[in-house]
Amino acid sequence: MESKIRVGIVGYGNLGRGTEASIAQQPDMELVAVFSRRNPDSVNIINPDVSVLHIDEAKNYTDKIDVMILCGGSATDLPEQVPTFAEMFNTVDSYDTHAKIPEFFASVDKVAQASGKTSVISVGWDPGMFSVNRVMSEALLPEGETYTFWGKGLSQGHSDAVRRVEGVKKGVQYTIPSEKVIEQVRNGENPDVSKSDRHVRTCYIVAEEGADTAKIEQEIKTMPNYFADYETTVHFITEEELKRDHSSMPHGGFVIRSGKTGEGNNQIAEYSLTLDSNPEFTASVLTAYTRAAYRLNKEGQKGAKTIYDVAPGYISPKSAEELRRDYL
Amino acid sequence: MESKIRVGIVGYGNLGRGTEASIAQQPDMELVAVFSRRNPDSVNIINPDVSVLHIDEAKNYTDKIDVMILCGGSATDLPEQVPTFAEMFNTVDSYDTHAKIPEFFASVDKVAQASGKTSVISVGWDPGMFSVNRVMSEALLPEGETYTFWGKGLSQGHSDAVRRVEGVKKGVQYTIPSEKVIEQVRNGENPDVSKSDRHVRTCYIVAEEGADTAKIEQEIKTMPNYFADYETTVHFITEEELKRDHSSMPHGGFVIRSGKTGEGNNQIAEYSLTLDSNPEFTASVLTAYTRAAYRLNKEGQKGAKTIYDVAPGYISPKSAEELRRDYL
Repeated sequence: MESKIRVGIVGYGNLGRGTEASIAQQPDMELVAVFSRRNPDSVNIINPDVSVLHIDEAKNYTDKIDVMILCGGSATDLPEQVPTFAEMFNTVDSYDTHAKIPEFFASVDKVAQASGKTSVISVGWDPGMFSVNRVMSEALLPEGETYTFWGKGLSQGHSDAVRRVEGVKKGVQYTIPSEKVIEQVRNGENPDVSKSDRHVRTCYIVAEEGADTAKIEQEIKTMPNYFADYETTVHFITEEELKRDHSSMPHGGFVIRSGKTGEGNNQIAEYSLTLDSNPEFTASVLTAYTRAAYRLNKEGQKGAKTIYDVAPGYISPKSAEELRRDYL
Repeated sequence: MESKIRVGIVGYGNLGRGTEASIAQQPDMELVAVFSRRNPDSVNIINPDVSVLHIDEAKNYTDKIDVMILCGGSATDLPEQVPTFAEMFNTVDSYDTHAKIPEFFASVDKVAQASGKTSVISVGWDPGMFSVNRVMSEALLPEGETYTFWGKGLSQGHSDAVRRVEGVKKGVQYTIPSEKVIEQVRNGENPDVSKSDRHVRTCYIVAEEGADTAKIEQEIKTMPNYFADYETTVHFITEEELKRDHSSMPHGGFVIRSGKTGEGNNQIAEYSLTLDSNPEFTASVLTAYTRAAYRLNKEGQKGAKTIYDVAPGYISPKSAEELRRDYL
């Protein structure tokens, strides 16, 4: 039997924790260590047998770790960490600032080409599984429209926005795709709808004692960029209800390609995710592409790669023969 | 601008015709010729400017055609034709006898390795898009179950079977997935259901004049292998209704992976197709993977390949830079 792929995790928030759990589900991987900027003693991971080390120690693990999974944030952590780590390790990350991906790719590719390492960037579900479905379904159905719907899901940015409103003690915001528009798209009607027509927003708010709830509701609904263009509903609930009903991090969505072939036949391809835990699913994608980073590097395919560059067989623990025999 | 990919079609039934229509939708391909075993004068193709030639002429086109798309049947045509053509051309096919794929792969690979050509085998929707979704979603969610549902769609084999019943003049059979089971799967209930529990069958029959319809219905419903294990409904209709309502070839289905991550969070990934025209969609997949066969061969990746060996970016007409910038 081949030896296992030796994996490290950098950063231990929700995503890092999900990644630890995901590695434990993989038959061919072992987690060597978790690296954090925090004091290692303050980082409680799931498996007490795995080392937790300060991030500065990572450089001593170049011959003990095959692939490093970077679980930091896209705003500041990953743009700095991924190029740094790609000098020493094969890497995988879920960098998700869509507009800056070309720049991020270039900076990682330059380092990884020089170091001879392989870095799979921006894998998760969007960017990630949704991206690959957008490209494949458009290649199959070149005449048509692609629709991405997000939700039902908890939106971190919008939840932060409602919590900044005066009188709001706690709150969460869900992005919910419009059932009506999804139905139109599935029927091949190709509706011309903006992002705000495709989604509605629902907020669950715990108000400060004595706060003016009508004023809070009005302020949320008219907030520019975040809510003003959307159909928004605001519910006021108790702190207990918030904790009981809104502590998990569900998310998901749909990528629907509605195309035409031949003499106008409608052809619909749809990919959807319904996730109880957004960070755990993103972690699962990171882990599967860790296998790809390892294999690509073994084959000498160095530099930065995206999900478009990775043949699907590379993410499966099965051999090519098994895939042809049992799955094709 | 790069020159176009020069494509040939071998075999001109529903699939060959769909492939001709699909090539016309591609910005970077041109159809050079259609090859048939029939008398070329009897083969009416869509574009009168494209040559129709006898299949024996193909050997004279090795320097005029980059990729040959084989559109024959899986029972006898493709096992013979694909190895023969792989001696001379890069090829793409939709060979779909699941149980014999390993053997088919081996026979094509041997020839293509020797000739230095690239053959992408068994691409369509199942095998094809469904296969790739089964493998990717299982790699992402290793703890769980995968469910494939076929339909609603016209089944050729079952339609043939009902037409063999005495007293049946004409007839079609649709395979329809069970809404109830789909709902259970989407809810993460992981039901333990056989293929016959997952599907119902509906027949539309034109009876011969004076035939005993009760007897026909009984005979269909109790037919072993085909119907006996299924919930089957039989409708008797007129010949006009059959022609008006049941002449198209719709199909589709679902691949649903229901997995668990972390402390038991349900994660559902679903891929579905709703196709007005089954052969035209299969043709679209063939055409997209024609691009991949061409590019892989240019890079020196010879031999037989399956959908698992082809990075998604290879099937898109966009450059890697465009994909990163506009789709990721």
